[in-house]
Amino acid sequence: MPQLRQDPLTNTWVIIATERGKRPSDFAEDKKEKAEHGNCPFCLGNEHMTPPEITAIREDGAESDGKGWEIRVIPNKFPALKNEGNVEKHKNGLYETMDGVGAHEVIIEAADHNQDIHLQTEEHILKVLKIWRERVKELGRDERLEYTQLFKNFGSVAGASLAHPHSQIISTPLVPENILVEMENMERFHRENKKCLLCEMVTTELEQQVRVVAENEDFLSFCPYASRFPFETWIIPRKHEKHFADVNDETLEGLSNVLKQTLNGLAQLLNEPPYNLMVHTAPYNIDGGGDYHWHIKILPRLTKVAGFEWGTGYYINPTPPEDAAEHFRGVDKVH
Amino acid sequence: MPQLRQDPLTNTWVIIATERGKRPSDFAEDKKEKAEHGNCPFCLGNEHMTPPEITAIREDGAESDGKGWEIRVIPNKFPALKNEGNVEKHKNGLYETMDGVGAHEVIIEAADHNQDIHLQTEEHILKVLKIWRERVKELGRDERLEYTQLFKNFGSVAGASLAHPHSQIISTPLVPENILVEMENMERFHRENKKCLLCEMVTTELEQQVRVVAENEDFLSFCPYASRFPFETWIIPRKHEKHFADVNDETLEGLSNVLKQTLNGLAQLLNEPPYNLMVHTAPYNIDGGGDYHWHIKILPRLTKVAGFEWGTGYYINPTPPEDAAEHFRGVDKVH
Repeated sequence: MPQLRQDPLTNTWVIIATERGKRPSDFAEDKKEKAEHGNCPFCLGNEHMTPPEITAIREDGAESDGKGWEIRVIPNKFPALKNEGNVEKHKNGLYETMDGVGAHEVIIEAADHNQDIHLQTEEHILKVLKIWRERVKELGRDERLEYTQLFKNFGSVAGASLAHPHSQIISTPLVPENILVEMENMERFHRENKKCLLCEMVTTELEQQVRVVAENEDFLSFCPYASRFPFETWIIPRKHEKHFADVNDETLEGLSNVLKQTLNGLAQLLNEPPYNLMVHTAPYNIDGGGDYHWHIKILPRLTKVAGFEWGTGYYINPTPPEDAAEHFRGVDKVH
Repeated sequence: MPQLRQDPLTNTWVIIATERGKRPSDFAEDKKEKAEHGNCPFCLGNEHMTPPEITAIREDGAESDGKGWEIRVIPNKFPALKNEGNVEKHKNGLYETMDGVGAHEVIIEAADHNQDIHLQTEEHILKVLKIWRERVKELGRDERLEYTQLFKNFGSVAGASLAHPHSQIISTPLVPENILVEMENMERFHRENKKCLLCEMVTTELEQQVRVVAENEDFLSFCPYASRFPFETWIIPRKHEKHFADVNDETLEGLSNVLKQTLNGLAQLLNEPPYNLMVHTAPYNIDGGGDYHWHIKILPRLTKVAGFEWGTGYYINPTPPEDAAEHFRGVDKVH
């Protein structure tokens, strides 16, 4: 069973895959392993290569785990966390540990190997977003789970081991440190200003305009003031809502539009660069989600994270967000 | 002038290189730029290709910025932070900013392009360590600087843009978030247990033995209980000392021995994998460095940092540290 371990010096939690035990020689092999189109387990016709699907969008009458699908959700074949064990923390002398309880799913976003999300129609993206919402909501019914991290890795530099369009979900039995820090800052800002920090950020960015990438009635996409990476982009809903799982269909329509513009703009600007995309949402239980305001972060992976960043937690960004946003505004983001 | 900016949502500080302003096309060019042996600015005979040296270990009578050196320290040609401006924070509406005051130096660790630190003799490594200590101490005399991050990036995956053996120093006008968190945890542990957290960690690891990589009279090298990366290794001095700048020559001798064993072991185990090495030391001023216990972290970069890690701050490690340490103990780390 995977194990969660906490470092007492930095507070960081780590998932140790005690079962798999990668040896030195396995890392050399990793370099070779790249599924080509044809033997890709996520492609239409290769459904037998994946674990049985959890849910899917299918033609009427099409059978589970056969052809005739547009989007499939499957358990990760090599899950980081598993649906077994209990969520008590144990002391191991100086250290703290718990069973690696959780869930790890893959959303295959399209049947076509080459149609990643920025090339899809808004209608198709909307279907992906509805599946995202459904899975985040569904996983919250398991009382052992405190948080669901929805993310997408695009390109091998960004950690994608398969090129076929897909995103992933990992649910954890703890609220992640990063989310706790964001909650704290939102709460402090609210206490001091009687306003939501992210609502205020949207207002500021719309006033100043210099970091805006795209906007519509429901969303603002912009390069944040303290961007850690060149062309980093955040998408914030204008409506203050805690839980991504609770957004309505109209909101998802707006998101589909702004997400297409942002990812398509990025692909055109930088020739489909590697990126990580994360949905940040409120925890399931803690304090009812507090004053949290859900949002999306997109990190293009053009610069390296190196010794200075690991040591300090600071980042060096060679492209000011004001410049990045100007470049974004200069490309056709729709076609 | 570079700018420091803080993100109000995550507290992260970012150095924005407002002058350089990398455009989209610059990132495509980055891929090509690789100095080959011969036009390497760090090689013997190419001293004119670097800014004038700050200090060096030279043969008697050899002239500055000429040949006849073993180790050279130079200012970084493209500094992240500069020795100008003042250290007041400014409010920019919602955001906080300050001038990018600091220092950025490069330590060229050897004249030979191909003799990285794990291939050097302990005698030569000791000279590098003495230079590290000298620079960290010297930079602390600038009252605007609060911290010096000493680090080494090995291999392009780990962020090294030049292959020639070198390490770097960036001094900052703020105490980095990561160090503040470590200080807090050390202080809390001390309050509750009347002991130092890292001293206790050394005791625990020596008792349990399962994560030990190498040890000598002055140091323990081990894979930490909550290793974020496969074959992650920490080196902790047995003697409780706050400031790396204050260690004596004998301690550096011990470090030279354990560092050689650790880096050489890593190179043999994994065929010279990319890694980041960071010296964590006490801040110059704050609280006199508190109860801090300086140490070194080495992160081999065999796995990708992806959406799950960026979103949560958690890590997934496929190699349990107990297995990693066993592999380390199985190789000849000296020759």
